[in-house]
Amino acid sequence: MKKEKKFALTLAYDGKAYAGWQWQENAPSIQQTLTLALEKICKEKIVLHGSSRTDAGVHARGHVSHFQTSCQIPADKLPLALNALLPEDIACLHAKEVEDDFHARFDAKAKQYSYYMYLGRQKSPFFSPYAAVLPFAYKEQLQWEKMKEACEVLKGTHDFLCFQASGAQTKTSIRTLYALEIEEVASPFDEASTSLQKDFLRIRVCGDGFLYNMVRILAGTLLYVGLGKMSVEDVKALLEHKNRKKAGKTMPPQGLFLDKVFYEEPTSVFFEKA
Amino acid sequence: MKKEKKFALTLAYDGKAYAGWQWQENAPSIQQTLTLALEKICKEKIVLHGSSRTDAGVHARGHVSHFQTSCQIPADKLPLALNALLPEDIACLHAKEVEDDFHARFDAKAKQYSYYMYLGRQKSPFFSPYAAVLPFAYKEQLQWEKMKEACEVLKGTHDFLCFQASGAQTKTSIRTLYALEIEEVASPFDEASTSLQKDFLRIRVCGDGFLYNMVRILAGTLLYVGLGKMSVEDVKALLEHKNRKKAGKTMPPQGLFLDKVFYEEPTSVFFEKA
Repeated sequence: MKKEKKFALTLAYDGKAYAGWQWQENAPSIQQTLTLALEKICKEKIVLHGSSRTDAGVHARGHVSHFQTSCQIPADKLPLALNALLPEDIACLHAKEVEDDFHARFDAKAKQYSYYMYLGRQKSPFFSPYAAVLPFAYKEQLQWEKMKEACEVLKGTHDFLCFQASGAQTKTSIRTLYALEIEEVASPFDEASTSLQKDFLRIRVCGDGFLYNMVRILAGTLLYVGLGKMSVEDVKALLEHKNRKKAGKTMPPQGLFLDKVFYEEPTSVFFEKA
Repeated sequence: MKKEKKFALTLAYDGKAYAGWQWQENAPSIQQTLTLALEKICKEKIVLHGSSRTDAGVHARGHVSHFQTSCQIPADKLPLALNALLPEDIACLHAKEVEDDFHARFDAKAKQYSYYMYLGRQKSPFFSPYAAVLPFAYKEQLQWEKMKEACEVLKGTHDFLCFQASGAQTKTSIRTLYALEIEEVASPFDEASTSLQKDFLRIRVCGDGFLYNMVRILAGTLLYVGLGKMSVEDVKALLEHKNRKKAGKTMPPQGLFLDKVFYEEPTSVFFEKA
C-alpha cells in the first residue's frame, strides 16, 4: 500500500450559490463540491475536514481544509487540477503537503473575518450579495467614535456568551479578540482605493476562535452603538452580565467574509491580507 | 382624460441572472422586470422603450429607457417606489420627466461602454460574472503599446462593417468612436484604486452608436493585437477591406458594461463616470 499524503487546501469562494460549507442532503455545499472534485482527481473516496463551517451565503478569501489520500499528485499541481474541475465561484488558491497530525480545524490558532455594510445613497445592483444593505441615512447618523470605543471594549479576552446564536452548545464561551477595527472602504474587493466615495463600512476582526454567529452579532452590536441604540457601557455590561437579549441583532450572512485562518501563534502583526 | 407624462429612467443592473434587456417569452429580462414593476406603480399597461438591447449577461451602470403614463407620480418619487419593487440586482438610479417627443433610443447621441478582462494569477471566485477570464500568462505577453496604437487607428469615423456579428442588418455600418482607451485597473467596481495589483484590463469606448456585438468584437481585436495575433496594419485593413473574418473574436458578454447614454452632443469631455 502506498503511503498516504495529507494536504491542506486554501480556498476562496463566493458563497451566494451555496448552502454553506457543510455537506447538505438537498442543497449544494462547498464541502460537497470540493470533495467531488478531489475524488475525481484522486480516484478514491475523500473525507474533507474544514477549518470553519461557513453559513449559507457567507464568503471566503482564505478558508483552509485538509484531506488524506494515497494519490501521489504533487501539492503544487493540485490547485490547477482542482480549479479546472471546480465551478467559477470556488477557487483553490494554494495547496501544501502537511504533517500526518495536522488538522485544519483543531490546529487553527486564529481566524480573521471581515463584515461589510453598504451605506451608499444609490441602490447598488452589484453589491447586495456581498454586504448588508443599510439605509443611506445611517451614513450621517453613525457615531464613529462610539463604535471605535466599543471595539476597544470588546478586544481582549472575555466571555462572549451574549454574542452567540441562542441554542448553540460549546464547552466555553471565553474567546480572545486580538484585533477589531471599523473602517470606511470603497468596496469589499479593493483595499487600496483612494476613492472619496467610501460607501461601505467594514468591520474586521481577528480572534482565537468564534462562537456560532459571533461575528455577525458583533457587527450588529457595533451598528447599534453607532446608531445610539446601545451605549459603550451597554457593551461592557454584555461582556459581564451575559444577557444575550441585549446584544445587537445578528447581521445577515452575505456581508461576512472569512479572510484567513492562522496556524501560527498570533503575533502583533494584524491584519494580514488573505 | 388626464394628460400623459413621459418619464426617462436611468438604471444600473447586474445582467448575470437575465436573458438581456429585451422581453423574452421564457426567460427573465430586464425590460419585463422593470415593466411589471412600473405597471404596479402606475396601475396601467406600460410600454417601455430602451436605449440599448443589452445581451444576456451584459451589465449596465447607466441604461436609459422611457415610457408614458397617465399616472401622476412625481419623477423624484419614482426611483424609491421602483427600487422597493425591483429585485436587488436592478436599481433605478434616476428618473426625470421628459418632453413628449423624447425617445430613449432614437435621441441617444452617444454611448459609453467598458469591457473588462481578468488577468490575475489566482482564479477569482468573485469576478467571473464581471469579466472575461484570460490566462495569467497573457499579462506578461500583452504588448500595450501596440494595443494603444490600434486604439488610435480605430478612433474616429469609419465603416465598422467588419466589427459586427454576422447576419446583423443595419442601414449603414459607419460609426464614429469619440474615445477608445485601454487601462489596467484593480477591479470593475473601483475607478480610484491605488492598488499595485491591477489584474483587470479595461477597454473603454465612447461612440455615436454601436453595431451588434461591436464592443465585444473591438475588445477581441484589441486583445489579438496585444497578443501579436494581429498587427496594427491588420486593424487598418479591417477598416478598409471590410472582411469580417479577419477581426478579433467576439469576447464573452459578462465583461461588458453599458456605462452611460448621452443625450447631448458629445463634447471633448470623455470619459464620464456613469
